[in-house]
Amino acid sequence: MVKQIAYLGPAGTYTEAASLLYDHEAELMPFPSIAAVVAAVDSKAAIEGVVPIENSLEGSVTDTLDLLIHDSNLSIRHEMVIPIEHCLLVKPGRLARDVASIYSHPQALGQCRRYIERTFPGAQAVASLSTSAAVEDMLRSQSPAAAIATSRAADIYGAEIIDRGIQDNLANYTRFVVLAQHDHPHTGRDKTSLCFAFNDDSPGKLYSVMGHFATRNINLAKVESRPNKESLGRYIFLIDLDGHREDALVQEALNRVEAEVSMMKVFGSYPRYQDS
Amino acid sequence: MVKQIAYLGPAGTYTEAASLLYDHEAELMPFPSIAAVVAAVDSKAAIEGVVPIENSLEGSVTDTLDLLIHDSNLSIRHEMVIPIEHCLLVKPGRLARDVASIYSHPQALGQCRRYIERTFPGAQAVASLSTSAAVEDMLRSQSPAAAIATSRAADIYGAEIIDRGIQDNLANYTRFVVLAQHDHPHTGRDKTSLCFAFNDDSPGKLYSVMGHFATRNINLAKVESRPNKESLGRYIFLIDLDGHREDALVQEALNRVEAEVSMMKVFGSYPRYQDS
Repeated sequence: MVKQIAYLGPAGTYTEAASLLYDHEAELMPFPSIAAVVAAVDSKAAIEGVVPIENSLEGSVTDTLDLLIHDSNLSIRHEMVIPIEHCLLVKPGRLARDVASIYSHPQALGQCRRYIERTFPGAQAVASLSTSAAVEDMLRSQSPAAAIATSRAADIYGAEIIDRGIQDNLANYTRFVVLAQHDHPHTGRDKTSLCFAFNDDSPGKLYSVMGHFATRNINLAKVESRPNKESLGRYIFLIDLDGHREDALVQEALNRVEAEVSMMKVFGSYPRYQDS
Repeated sequence: MVKQIAYLGPAGTYTEAASLLYDHEAELMPFPSIAAVVAAVDSKAAIEGVVPIENSLEGSVTDTLDLLIHDSNLSIRHEMVIPIEHCLLVKPGRLARDVASIYSHPQALGQCRRYIERTFPGAQAVASLSTSAAVEDMLRSQSPAAAIATSRAADIYGAEIIDRGIQDNLANYTRFVVLAQHDHPHTGRDKTSLCFAFNDDSPGKLYSVMGHFATRNINLAKVESRPNKESLGRYIFLIDLDGHREDALVQEALNRVEAEVSMMKVFGSYPRYQDS
């Protein structure tokens, strides 16, 4: 039986590319939002779900973090990192000099701002709901337009690529995670993601929690804070650490942390991504 | 002479409301991007600039943090916190039941998602570049439409408010900062914002830095990380601490931190916001 994997669609987005990298034999099911992907895995309509979690320029994908923190009991089972290569797409046969407006998701427009200013100084930036929606908006447009999207979106929607790698900063990577009912067994090269919060914010508390990892030589790959959604200035902390939650030292540290915080949630342990 | 203050426009946005709260006698000059506000203050076209820095639901405004970290030597001189109250605007005389599409900035659409699903289940969400641009898009729309924006935008653009406070989570506040050539003198109830980074990421380094504050009983109001924009998994850390950079203990801690990091930048000390 073919495995069914939900992903943040539509087809042609970077999340689809990450899903194909993860399992190119699975049946990929596009969903219109990160919340809908999580709901599909929760309801067992899909075995696993693929969503973006972090970009090297923009930082965390807050919708994904907030769902993991507040609204879902799914685990992180895998991670993939893929380079973001924005392309400029037009209607087949159109010339580049005709472009009067450029459609894309606001984030992609922002990542190509200097390219647009340099190459199309007179063009107007127009917001779309995704890079794939931008291609559809561009194809429907009455005036000469272009879209910023993936190369695969050009194939899917029948558009023509007139430029590639147009992002201003070439160190543009996105990390995706696979969400499932259970996390991944121990492999020996693992990461663990978790969050925790405190009832009050006396100065030493976060420091004390970090000490439980530092004294056991457990590397923290990432420390981040998110608003707790109740009052400005109160935070939930997120940590990625090197190791599996079943490693003896990690387990020991997590037990000590749990005793000091008002809330702790381990999102799961999974193999650290390695470019093959 | 009237003081000139640049702000993230257009008129009718929440940033304009924060600027009026800060100084309602100043001449307010709208600019189309956070980078343009910073440039206006850098070039002395304006004395100060007002930009959003953090929202209680969405988290940090990454454009502002990235400009402070990488591209500007301006200081934070003040902060203001204002409640976000989204309103539903239509063309004068339109009925609510006619609404087929709803325009707004993607963030405002996300903050009112449940309200839209409940009240206008058949309506289509359409992205605009700001809440004020959404009102203009709505007024120009051929089909029956609404826009999510501020109540002031209704006055400015001649639209009619048919619902108020439509955000899903009522604990929705945004913190704004005033950027200037110099930060604020000591007041006795101050905050200091700074960032720092390490050349490598051995486990104990962030812990050691935080120790310099903890041992001096300096409260860290906020700890956050941003990608360093060079490689995924390498971060710049941002801290807000209670106290002024000229307080003896704070100065002592900052000197110790500076000796341990590869980069440190103090964004400034300024009075902690108090609702009057």
